[in-house]
Amino acid sequence: MTPTPDFETYPDDRVVEATASQRWVTVRWADGMAARFHHVWLRDNCPCSRCVHDVTKEQTFELDATTEPRPDGPVGVDGSGALVVVWADDGHRSAYHPGWLRAHRYDGPQVASPPAILTWDGSTPDLPPTFDGPTVLADDDVLHQWLIALRAVGFTRLVDVPLDLDAVGRVAARIGPIRETNFGVLWDVRSEPAPVTNANTDLSLPPHVDLCTREYQPGLQFLHCIRNTTAGGRGRYVDGFRVAEILRDEHPEHHAVLTTQPMARANRSPASDYRWSAPPIVLDPAGAVTEIRWGNWLRAPLAVGFESVEAVYAAGAAMAAVAGRDDLAIDLVLRPGDLIAFDNRRILHGREAFDGGGGERLLRGCYGEREELHSRLRVLERATRQAARA
Amino acid sequence: MTPTPDFETYPDDRVVEATASQRWVTVRWADGMAARFHHVWLRDNCPCSRCVHDVTKEQTFELDATTEPRPDGPVGVDGSGALVVVWADDGHRSAYHPGWLRAHRYDGPQVASPPAILTWDGSTPDLPPTFDGPTVLADDDVLHQWLIALRAVGFTRLVDVPLDLDAVGRVAARIGPIRETNFGVLWDVRSEPAPVTNANTDLSLPPHVDLCTREYQPGLQFLHCIRNTTAGGRGRYVDGFRVAEILRDEHPEHHAVLTTQPMARANRSPASDYRWSAPPIVLDPAGAVTEIRWGNWLRAPLAVGFESVEAVYAAGAAMAAVAGRDDLAIDLVLRPGDLIAFDNRRILHGREAFDGGGGERLLRGCYGEREELHSRLRVLERATRQAARA
Repeated sequence: MTPTPDFETYPDDRVVEATASQRWVTVRWADGMAARFHHVWLRDNCPCSRCVHDVTKEQTFELDATTEPRPDGPVGVDGSGALVVVWADDGHRSAYHPGWLRAHRYDGPQVASPPAILTWDGSTPDLPPTFDGPTVLADDDVLHQWLIALRAVGFTRLVDVPLDLDAVGRVAARIGPIRETNFGVLWDVRSEPAPVTNANTDLSLPPHVDLCTREYQPGLQFLHCIRNTTAGGRGRYVDGFRVAEILRDEHPEHHAVLTTQPMARANRSPASDYRWSAPPIVLDPAGAVTEIRWGNWLRAPLAVGFESVEAVYAAGAAMAAVAGRDDLAIDLVLRPGDLIAFDNRRILHGREAFDGGGGERLLRGCYGEREELHSRLRVLERATRQAARA
Repeated sequence: MTPTPDFETYPDDRVVEATASQRWVTVRWADGMAARFHHVWLRDNCPCSRCVHDVTKEQTFELDATTEPRPDGPVGVDGSGALVVVWADDGHRSAYHPGWLRAHRYDGPQVASPPAILTWDGSTPDLPPTFDGPTVLADDDVLHQWLIALRAVGFTRLVDVPLDLDAVGRVAARIGPIRETNFGVLWDVRSEPAPVTNANTDLSLPPHVDLCTREYQPGLQFLHCIRNTTAGGRGRYVDGFRVAEILRDEHPEHHAVLTTQPMARANRSPASDYRWSAPPIVLDPAGAVTEIRWGNWLRAPLAVGFESVEAVYAAGAAMAAVAGRDDLAIDLVLRPGDLIAFDNRRILHGREAFDGGGGERLLRGCYGEREELHSRLRVLERATRQAARA
């Protein structure tokens, strides 16, 4: 079998015809699909064991900028349907798995995968997607289902998670490394006599994302309810991507400000001083929202130009008003054993005030990253594909 | 003393005159400097203990979008030189420390602080800035000097660091939390029989930043030499910001590609699959380079449009050629006890091949973040200012 420069399996879509021209090779597969691949791209992506390390699958070959890769005469197809190219400058032979080649074609309109994102509001049924905690900890198939929901909906719940203080870390480790911050690896949310954050008072908290004062906001947040005998403190969850969609559709003038003007945020304590300024709504190059940065009680003095101040305040008020709409929210009382996991760069969370003197309320939490979620999902999907072909 | 909404101390620059007009207050300080502050900005930034939590210094007040803040008649100055405003809608009284107000003025040209960045090449004298490891661990003033160098030069060395396996973690913790990755909290660089990365072979490594396959590349890297009895393996360090400056000045057509076209990177192992696509040179809105993303042996198949492929390859070859220039590099053999700390989003590092069979070479490393460096520097500077005024 022709090697591939990764740990994936690919369909055996045989190449049936390959023709070299001046700058590229045109490949046709058995079903008639065709694509062009530049010589330089092909030489760069040779998967052989001299060009890619056998074990690490990382490249050891680097293009020599002074040599222009060109096939030495015609290119061919071997008995397995792989494209074969022999290079003129050094006689090196490259063979490309036909399924790998097809999966990585770049000729013609780029086929963007549809984003696996489903935005929601308070009327969306069956929210949050809920899974059995012990099963998620033990079973990779249920883990996979949970992570698909976490990616799509951004807000999920596990129930019956063991009540020990390390359980939230074990759940997070099913995805990947925990992100340590100045609050520690695992941290507690409870009313404290000398809090360093409003989270550790019994005050209400308006909808927000955590650590909006950092350049890279944590992508995942896990909150595990260990004890709750207080009155009040009901949690509220809002899909920030839906908030952004509403602002885009109903308040385009504010949306334009919110996607371009930086808002300053700061989080200071006797031992730390974090600051970051960025727009509260971040769009990707295609215009899709990828990130919300919103935490009103960590606002630093606005430092945009004098002429922009009032427009930024008006846009911020509009965003606060939409984020505060009851019809967008899911309100949820956490019971001991409940663990909510959400995309902290998307989901706004808040809480009602509670009575810090009457009973005990202890949540234990930690942070993770979106890219760890995506890596874990790719590995789970890789295993599923390999099992399907075995 | 009028409170400030932070943990800072400010000069007593007394306000001597304050006049309210329709939408703002004009303030004049004792030395004649004047600035306007919008009513909405002032109301939002009231530092009193009803608007900002006394202990956390986080806001508890939120603007009511339905009320337009207006002073109730004339504004004033109190006996300490603080601006005083009483608000018409609810009679709330706000007093603003005159030094705080001056430090946060936004009227007129924004005075951008000059970036504390000094780019360098192989002929720059006295590199890397070198500090005594045990002193950095024990003394905050020397810690401060080290961190100023790390921010400005991006590449520093500690010597005589204790040879135990936890020392690199203790050094990193002088700045802030360590960033755990799939490689662990602390990790080893050495030649291994079954490596998951080319770093853990005895191969040469071209200049690169670590974890260019992540959305957020680690901002800091620490590498501590524990043992080295092998031949070869000399390290090479290049200022990536200088590489970007050279490309901008000498190859503007390539620089345009390198700052806009995404290059795909991937790092796969049996247990992980990280991917990210982004331009190799990232500029801030003012056009200054803020980040380099470069790691040739983790390149994924380029997936730009067919018409752009050759331009991206040409630009990448130009960048590799500049990054490989001997005159830009500092070459350094690490001795046991040496610990290099550098800005991993700026400094390219590489190494020569070494003889993995002849002797032992063990580096122990970890990652941190730029924003932790900046937070630690602000806290150290805060302490210096407070000491100066005490």
